[in-house]
Amino acid sequence: MRFTSEQVLDGGVLEREFTLDEIPGILWTPTSASAPVPLILLGHPPLGLHTMYPRLLARARHSVAQGFAAATIELPGSGDRPRWAAVEQARADLRRAVKAGEPVSDEIIDALVLPLVEKAVPEWQAALDVLLTLPEIGGPVGYSGGVISIGIRLAVVEPRIVAAGLFAGSFVPRIMFEEARHVTIPLHVLLQWDDENNDRQAALDLFDAFGSKEKTLLANMGGHTGVPHYAAEDAMGFFTRHLH
Amino acid sequence: MRFTSEQVLDGGVLEREFTLDEIPGILWTPTSASAPVPLILLGHPPLGLHTMYPRLLARARHSVAQGFAAATIELPGSGDRPRWAAVEQARADLRRAVKAGEPVSDEIIDALVLPLVEKAVPEWQAALDVLLTLPEIGGPVGYSGGVISIGIRLAVVEPRIVAAGLFAGSFVPRIMFEEARHVTIPLHVLLQWDDENNDRQAALDLFDAFGSKEKTLLANMGGHTGVPHYAAEDAMGFFTRHLH
Repeated sequence: MRFTSEQVLDGGVLEREFTLDEIPGILWTPTSASAPVPLILLGHPPLGLHTMYPRLLARARHSVAQGFAAATIELPGSGDRPRWAAVEQARADLRRAVKAGEPVSDEIIDALVLPLVEKAVPEWQAALDVLLTLPEIGGPVGYSGGVISIGIRLAVVEPRIVAAGLFAGSFVPRIMFEEARHVTIPLHVLLQWDDENNDRQAALDLFDAFGSKEKTLLANMGGHTGVPHYAAEDAMGFFTRHLH
Repeated sequence: MRFTSEQVLDGGVLEREFTLDEIPGILWTPTSASAPVPLILLGHPPLGLHTMYPRLLARARHSVAQGFAAATIELPGSGDRPRWAAVEQARADLRRAVKAGEPVSDEIIDALVLPLVEKAVPEWQAALDVLLTLPEIGGPVGYSGGVISIGIRLAVVEPRIVAAGLFAGSFVPRIMFEEARHVTIPLHVLLQWDDENNDRQAALDLFDAFGSKEKTLLANMGGHTGVPHYAAEDAMGFFTRHLH
């Protein structure tokens, strides 16, 4: 891991950009912490870190204000990382289907999401390996938001992640509903009730499928990007209960 | 309104029992307040105030700790109030149907709930008239929990109630789904995902029906009485946003 920039933002937030095996990432830590703090991994949609930066920073500020470190890495095929032909093709197929008003087929969803999960999850785990060696970061680790299938896979395979806040706002391959049954960590699932990108019933079915004994569904009005500010506060309450 | 008892509980809570037109009630206020505080009406199932007292007190303590007054009154036909033959009959019919493993018919639900709504709602409004004359209580007013149909009717007809926290945990007459469309105040709806007394799909349909622009559904695991303690904290966050 190589830090490529460092700046102190107001609110006592130290922001450091890094690269790890040519994957760009950002780490936010409290400037004031006197002991190692728990870490929240900030997931995001595959739109590139630059595009997502304002929203990621807002979530990082919330996290740091509650005494957490927050970190994110670029997804494969996004941002400054090399294009990825297979996923580009699936995205084009998705756009075409949506534009034509056709239902988005299982094949398109699988082609869009499954390769991303396969490639991204080990990268997030590798990032975790390195981040947890930093003296200012302790544990435990939470995962928050982003592509829900990546969150599901991480929750199943990565024992250092002890709680996850998921956003039921993206296409979910059928096979992930099976995988969801193997999730046992506490979950806080956000659902936008009128999400134009999302099948509400599928999201409710997915919530039902999760094997976790403690899981909360928090549904709010509005579309995909209309998550109200107080939903972020509720999510912080969830992470505070499980990581502090 | 006649106060019949008064005691200071630990945590700075003044608890006063009262009767209002022969209806028993309880008022909890902060001993420390220097200005009039907003009021939360604590709804409850028709099991009698004595039975419900421990849970009501816990909710009242939460409310007072956040700078609210809290008040409740006995429901018609419950506790020390005179029996009510029509509702007793409906309850017996309900018990018989549940025991026999039969579906609970719309007729039973209507007979159980609609007379209660018709009689209770004006009583809560009358209580509100008097409670708001007390110098220690200002406004605005929130309604919380209890029989959800009473909450729906109050939200529609009582303009002094500006926010409601509802519990999707009781039988809802068909006609109340229509009434729900006329609710426009902010709502915080609690759903127990595996509520043995409750049809989950009906609860989701009811949530969808509410006309409010701001509504949140908070679903947690577990049965009817298994609402987790942090759900109460989330509800307090909702009332703090809307009443303070």
